[in-house]
Formats: sequence, C-alpha cells, structure tokens
Amino acid sequence: MDRREKLRDVGERRAIEILKNILDRGRGKNIVVGIGDDCAVIDMGNKYLLVTTDMISLETHIPIGTEPFQIGWYVVSVNLSDVAAKGGTPIGIVTALGLPRTTTIDFIEELADGMDSCAREFGLSVVGGDTKEAYSLTIAGAAFGTVSRKDIMLRTGTRMGDIVALTGSLGKAASGFYSIKHSLGLKNAEKALLEPYPRVREGIALAGTHAVTSCMDISDGLASSAYQMSLVTGLKFQIDWEKIPIAGEVHRVCRKCGIDEEELVLYYGGDFELLLTLKPEMFSLAQRTLEKIGTKLTKIGKVCRGQSNLLIRDGRKGRIRKRLENRGWEHFMK
Amino acid sequence: MDRREKLRDVGERRAIEILKNILDRGRGKNIVVGIGDDCAVIDMGNKYLLVTTDMISLETHIPIGTEPFQIGWYVVSVNLSDVAAKGGTPIGIVTALGLPRTTTIDFIEELADGMDSCAREFGLSVVGGDTKEAYSLTIAGAAFGTVSRKDIMLRTGTRMGDIVALTGSLGKAASGFYSIKHSLGLKNAEKALLEPYPRVREGIALAGTHAVTSCMDISDGLASSAYQMSLVTGLKFQIDWEKIPIAGEVHRVCRKCGIDEEELVLYYGGDFELLLTLKPEMFSLAQRTLEKIGTKLTKIGKVCRGQSNLLIRDGRKGRIRKRLENRGWEHFMK
Repeated sequence: MDRREKLRDVGERRAIEILKNILDRGRGKNIVVGIGDDCAVIDMGNKYLLVTTDMISLETHIPIGTEPFQIGWYVVSVNLSDVAAKGGTPIGIVTALGLPRTTTIDFIEELADGMDSCAREFGLSVVGGDTKEAYSLTIAGAAFGTVSRKDIMLRTGTRMGDIVALTGSLGKAASGFYSIKHSLGLKNAEKALLEPYPRVREGIALAGTHAVTSCMDISDGLASSAYQMSLVTGLKFQIDWEKIPIAGEVHRVCRKCGIDEEELVLYYGGDFELLLTLKPEMFSLAQRTLEKIGTKLTKIGKVCRGQSNLLIRDGRKGRIRKRLENRGWEHFMK
Repeated sequence: MDRREKLRDVGERRAIEILKNILDRGRGKNIVVGIGDDCAVIDMGNKYLLVTTDMISLETHIPIGTEPFQIGWYVVSVNLSDVAAKGGTPIGIVTALGLPRTTTIDFIEELADGMDSCAREFGLSVVGGDTKEAYSLTIAGAAFGTVSRKDIMLRTGTRMGDIVALTGSLGKAASGFYSIKHSLGLKNAEKALLEPYPRVREGIALAGTHAVTSCMDISDGLASSAYQMSLVTGLKFQIDWEKIPIAGEVHRVCRKCGIDEEELVLYYGGDFELLLTLKPEMFSLAQRTLEKIGTKLTKIGKVCRGQSNLLIRDGRKGRIRKRLENRGWEHFMK
C-alpha cells in the first residue's frame, strides 16, 4: 500500500479499515464490541451500553434545499438507526456542531428544533453539545442507549440456513433523491430521504423475540450492507429479487429518469431499514411481532455458502444468478 | 433579538444558550444533568453515566504545523478533560472524522495513533467512529465514563465561604502558542498546547475526597470558566492574583512578545486544569490527596457575594480590586 495514497483513491471503507487496525489494539476488558458493528458495546454489569457516532456535512451529504429542521432531524435519526439495529433503547444523544460564522440564529433554532423533535419522537433528548466554528456546516452526533445481554443483536450470529429478511421496503429514499433532482413532486419519498424514520421500535421488538441471529442498519444500501455482514462470518447471502419489497414510487421514478431499478433498489441506500438474519423456525414469530406495531418484515433470501453474495432473478430463460456487488453509499470515491 | 443575526455577531456562548433553550425542553426522567455542565449525567441505576462531546476543526482550532498525531491526541484529550472535571472514570470514546478527499493514508494512520495513544494513556480505547468527506478537517469526539452518585462533582454545589482552587498552573498553553508564533523554541510549553494532558487521575482522586463542592474544566481560560461557574449559583469568585500558580515560561514569553501577563494568564485558556470550589475544612485533605499523585492544588481565592467576579492584586498604593471579565476562548467572534 502506498501510504501517500489519498482518500479519494481508496474510499471510506478502506479508511475505516486503517483506523480499525490501529484503534483495535487497545481494547479494554469491558468492551464487548469495538469498531466494526453499528455500535460499540460496553459491558456495564447489569446491562450493555451501546454507543455510536455519525457525522454529516453540508456539501457532501445534504441535498440542496434541505431545511435546517430536516438537517437536525437527520443527524439524530442516523445515529438512532444504529442503536435500533442492536435492539437498543436509546437514552440520549450529544451533538457537536461545526458552524460557519455566517450561520443565522434562525438556522440554529430550526436545526435544534429538528434535533429535539426526532429525539422526542423516540423518548430521549439531546443531552449535550458543542458548537465550533467550521468552514462549512458539519454536524456529528453520538447516541447512546442500553440493551440487555440476552437481547442484543450483533452482526456475528449468522448461521447456515438462516432466513434473510428486511423491515419495510427499499428504494423510497432514492426515489426522493431523484424526485428532488428532477422536480417530480413525490413528497412522501422526499420526506423519507430527508427525514428518515429510524426503526427504533422495530429493533427493540425484534430483539425481544430472540429470533434474530444478526442485524444491521441498511442505510448504505442492501448490497453494501449484505457484503459487510457476510464478511463477519464468511457465510453468503442469496437474495431473491422478486421477494424484495420495493417502495411504490420506484417504478415511476426509474421510468421517468431512465434509471435501472436494480441499481436504485440495491445500490443507492438511504432507506433506514434493518437487514436481518433469523432462525427459520422463529421467522413467523418475528413477523407477527412487527405486524403488531404496523411494520412489515419480509423474507428476501437465505444464508448459504459460496464465493459471494448472489442476486437470483427470474429471466426469460429461467432463473438468473448474478453477483451482488460490494457497492453502495461510499464516500470520497467520486 | 434579531433572528437574522449571525454567529460572528453573537458568539459561541449565545449559540449554546439558544440551543440549550430548545433542547432542554425534552429532558427525560433519567437525565440528571443535560446541557450546561461539562458532561451530561445519566442515572443508570447502579451509577452515573457521563457523556460529553467536543469538536475541533483544522483552520480554526489547530495551530499551523501541528502533527496529525497531536491532532488525534488533542481530540481525545479535550473530551477526557470534561469527564475528569466530573470525577469520572472514562470508559471509551467514539470519534467522527470529517476528512477532505485529499487526506493521505499516512495522515489517517498518524491521527489514529494519536487518538489511540491518548486513550490508552488513560486506560480506555477508541471504540467506534465514522469517517465522512468534509471540505476541511473536522473531528468530533464523544467520550463516556462512569462515576458513583456520591462522588460526582457538578458545577452546582458552590457555597458561601468555599475555597477556590486550581490544579497545576496557568499560562503554559498560551506560552506554547506564542512560542510557536514567534519561534521561541519553548518545547515544553508547545507540547502543553498541542498535546494537553487531561486531569483524569486528579478528577477521580478529588471526587473521592468529597471535599469538592463544584468543579469544571478550565480550558476556556480562568476568567471565562469562573464566570460560567458563578452563573450557576449566583455566588461570585474573588481571585488573588498573587496566589495564582503561573507556569515558568509566562514571564519570558510576555516580555519577549510584549503581552500583558494578566491577559495571558486569565483570558487565553488552553490549560487543561480543573477549577474547583472546596469546603474550607477539607481543603488540606484534597491538597494532600493530589500531592500523592504528584499534582499541586493551589488555593487562589474564595467564594463570596457581589456584583461580579473580582481579581485582587497588590498595587503600589495597596490592594487593587478589578472586575474579572467574562472573556476567554470564544469562537466565532473575531
């Protein structure tokens, strides 16, 4: 590796690997999971503490025209989504705001309103913060929560033959992105992109079933998340295209904008859903549990051995098998 | 208030007040302290969880020539200093890195090394992170730790007649800043500025004495921190200039650079010391406790009633009393 190489050449994943290699050396004895899952997991004796951090910056992550309220909502939501993926109950969040000197009071108030609204929606509050001058708007949140030892959902439990499932549907956030870009006026999809709703209640409910063997937040996209998850155990995912629940707007957006549906659904990301592997005999229990809180849980494939994750799709001459690529919402590489 | 006013006009403090007003509305029942202390304090049943966040950005907080290792060290240290001020034992830290696309692998490795080294120095580790593209280097850390209910040191306990005291000495970081600026070659002072050493051990030791009534991190400067602390109870601080322990480099730096000593010692900031109020009858116990770990605790004044915090100083015609101003390391206002 050329150590003078730059991030734009190696990408965010590689940067995280480099960081992980260095930072994992010093792991303390009460650290159950360090870098490499949605949250860090710390043994607090009576329960597990979950901690996660996510950063957004104006030019690179926030579509033009996003309201300050939505930016505030988003930074809380993206952090809660990580807590949700471990089955945790969020307790609080701290936010660090890097603000340009020209930021108005108005903007700050609306931003805080958005953060507060999202936190309250899930029964927690913004308990601390920092503001510093920065050249462009950059906001980092760090959320924390708890989960009992027996309920926690990590990325490590996947077994051969497990069912692969997904909460909600895919492609809504991507549809929102193209709706804004091409002024299609799909308000629901735009809201899904800009004010994503983390699966906090679903995470807690699923954790309680003990049906889940692994879980992760899927906001980087299905293909990319499946790749990340398959790396942990070496087991691969076989996904049935026909089973993937696709958001109502996707067909229209793809037709109008000339975008390939597979590309949008598998590789765009932005949907705050959970990707799960489950014990086959307990899948219907998990499904019924989510049904009670109004959320769909859909089987989209199974865990198997193989060279790579696969997408199975009906073709004219029977079933087509293709590689599910390791691509998604990757920063730096543009 | 004109809501179109900008941060450069109102400053960081005002921004934090605005945020606090909005964010404090939704405080949950297990939140002992939200925004307004060095850390948020959450009741975890068996103990208190402390959480804090601090952000730094390249152009506005990091002197030219700072090594990536030092940037990494700094972001961990500045967060640990907040945990130290509450008497907490730090458990872990998560860091969110906003990196320009041109950042080299070399830089990331050294940055991670610095974060890791500071964390290990205090027995914890960097347990999670995020990297995102940003226009200029911006790093946020969020540290967490625990403290027992009976040991915690908040900002709220100050009483009339308490002793005001300080760990270590003042002016070293400021001396380092001017040493770099004017190439004075004061390596110790420069290191104090760029690789500050948080008072984690001192915070834990002091908390154990139960002699402390209030405590805060003083990295914004003595005058500014005293103002913040006096706001909480309405009681004021009377500081004796002659008693303030001043770093060895200060006299020389002020003479060489034509800087007023009071200005540098009281208003510059950057020293990672603790400002405390203590029960008078227990001060010597606290002092002896810190002596055992090699740190000086110095009485610099007392708590009293009055209009504002005061600085008392020997003048030619007897004692001079002047207002200790609310100025310090304030961002945005330049």
